[in-house]
Amino acid sequence: MNPLYPPGSGVAPPEVLKSLAGLEFMQRLVAGEIPPPPIAVTLDFNVVSVERGVVTFEGRPGAKAYNPLGLIHGGYAATLLDSCMGCAVMTHVEAGMGYVTLELKVSYLRAMSHTTGVVRAIGRTLHVGRRSGFAEGEIVDSTGRRIAHGTTTCLVYPL
Amino acid sequence: MNPLYPPGSGVAPPEVLKSLAGLEFMQRLVAGEIPPPPIAVTLDFNVVSVERGVVTFEGRPGAKAYNPLGLIHGGYAATLLDSCMGCAVMTHVEAGMGYVTLELKVSYLRAMSHTTGVVRAIGRTLHVGRRSGFAEGEIVDSTGRRIAHGTTTCLVYPL
Amino acid sequence: MNPLYPPGSGVAPPEVLKSLAGLEFMQRLVAGEIPPPPIAVTLDFNVVSVERGVVTFEGRPGAKAYNPLGLIHGGYAATLLDSCMGCAVMTHVEAGMGYVTLELKVSYLRAMSHTTGVVRAIGRTLHVGRRSGFAEGEIVDSTGRRIAHGTTTCLVYPL
Amino acid sequence: MNPLYPPGSGVAPPEVLKSLAGLEFMQRLVAGEIPPPPIAVTLDFNVVSVERGVVTFEGRPGAKAYNPLGLIHGGYAATLLDSCMGCAVMTHVEAGMGYVTLELKVSYLRAMSHTTGVVRAIGRTLHVGRRSGFAEGEIVDSTGRRIAHGTTTCLVYPL
Repeated sequence: MNPLYPPGSGVAPPEVLKSLAGLEFMQRLVAGEIPPPPIAVTLDFNVVSVERGVVTFEGRPGAKAYNPLGLIHGGYAATLLDSCMGCAVMTHVEAGMGYVTLELKVSYLRAMSHTTGVVRAIGRTLHVGRRSGFAEGEIVDSTGRRIAHGTTTCLVYPL
Repeated sequence: MNPLYPPGSGVAPPEVLKSLAGLEFMQRLVAGEIPPPPIAVTLDFNVVSVERGVVTFEGRPGAKAYNPLGLIHGGYAATLLDSCMGCAVMTHVEAGMGYVTLELKVSYLRAMSHTTGVVRAIGRTLHVGRRSGFAEGEIVDSTGRRIAHGTTTCLVYPL
Repeated sequence: MNPLYPPGSGVAPPEVLKSLAGLEFMQRLVAGEIPPPPIAVTLDFNVVSVERGVVTFEGRPGAKAYNPLGLIHGGYAATLLDSCMGCAVMTHVEAGMGYVTLELKVSYLRAMSHTTGVVRAIGRTLHVGRRSGFAEGEIVDSTGRRIAHGTTTCLVYPL
Repeated sequence: MNPLYPPGSGVAPPEVLKSLAGLEFMQRLVAGEIPPPPIAVTLDFNVVSVERGVVTFEGRPGAKAYNPLGLIHGGYAATLLDSCMGCAVMTHVEAGMGYVTLELKVSYLRAMSHTTGVVRAIGRTLHVGRRSGFAEGEIVDSTGRRIAHGTTTCLVYPL
């Protein structure tokens, strides 16, 4: 374990990434066979379910993500949406192919604070082709209220 | 100091926020008279300069912001861009008025890793009116290479 | 009728706009009691159904909207999406209030040509508050294939 | 000339597109050796200057682009920005390669009406790589006031 990573986190070796289809990689992450990435421990979120085209994360927005105004920083929702939408695209990417986020848009519908509680971020693909992939996503609280919405464009390419 | 905040960080009391124009609030943050917000300590970035319409942050993307692929998570650039662009809009907001980010877009031009070193995020207003404000921003590395670009829309409203 | 407008088109007098709730304005447009706007005749599209939070247009992308490459210009999808999403927000705006589009994002999932045939653009609100409104939209062809996706942020304000 | 195109307009034959670098194609369009595309005649705009990475259009927003509220429809600015930004990316694309717009964002800073007069839309590349290209753009009026701002992501691929 790299001592610079938060306890319990890690990154996947490149040979694992290359050898697995994106869906299988994500399934191993859910199963705990691949460790959660450092950012997920740092900002307190984790993947909870994966199927082809739909990936769901849970996050616990807390005081360490506060902005100067005493609310959860907009970067928190952006991080969750980038995660769930990018991973949704990844579930369509075959072994030997990679993907990278080209751009991300986030709409902030409601503010989050530490009283928001657990939120879910659900990413769904809009269309994935040979060279590009599109997804949308939303963050909802435990009562189902929509907190944020996002869209993303990814590049798909041979590794 | 709230013990849930990372050491050395804090949020501004609402009465301070209401009594200051946005430019003065930002100047006090640069001067260290207002503590850095929790998110800035959590993700290792800080504001370095403020003038009307232009705000610059510095960030040190590190291993704790890694994604599963061993690169800096896209949420890191989004957090820096939301900060510098939102604060640029804030420098145009008078005392008694507030602002909130309605939406954010980030374009990822180049990947960041822990070898990227210190990056600067510069936010510049495009136009600020009575009810809305627009800004753009970019992240550049120490050699001036552009790593990411962003735009944002903020709502301006009476507190 | 202003002779500069395409035949059969027109704009609504300001006093009509001010006196009607957005939903009622849109219902009169569907009913033909308010003439279609000039842009709709110029680019060959029209509103076909309106309910609170959901507005649908039909468009006939044709040769007059071609780009230099012989495909429908990206501005055509942007125009349809801005129309259906902005009008969806409008259906939530009370009499005496106005709205204006602050920003628009369009994702181009598939190309359109003059062989695409009639397309539908459906706008749905994500959240409308006192000062802002958010919507998403999509363009689908007659077989239901998704051609483009959009999101928008609107400002809501007293007239 | 295809009778469905507006008088004086046309599209480029595929073999011309394939044989020219993007910069040369754009230079021929400015020189009038390639006809203006149909959409440019339909919405009254034209390219006025081209250099590597920067392309400028002029537009004459008029009554035929009006929305129901008596202002220029948001699709007009989107069309100009998609044109100037996409063409800026195109000037970096070598012969044998093509490009396509993946997504477009437009920020509406000020309204346009038929009294706005001639506007200029300037697109500038942010970064163009082997598989993707990014650009930003702005629309300014004859006094230099910024009316709209845009960003785009394009895919670059072998024809």
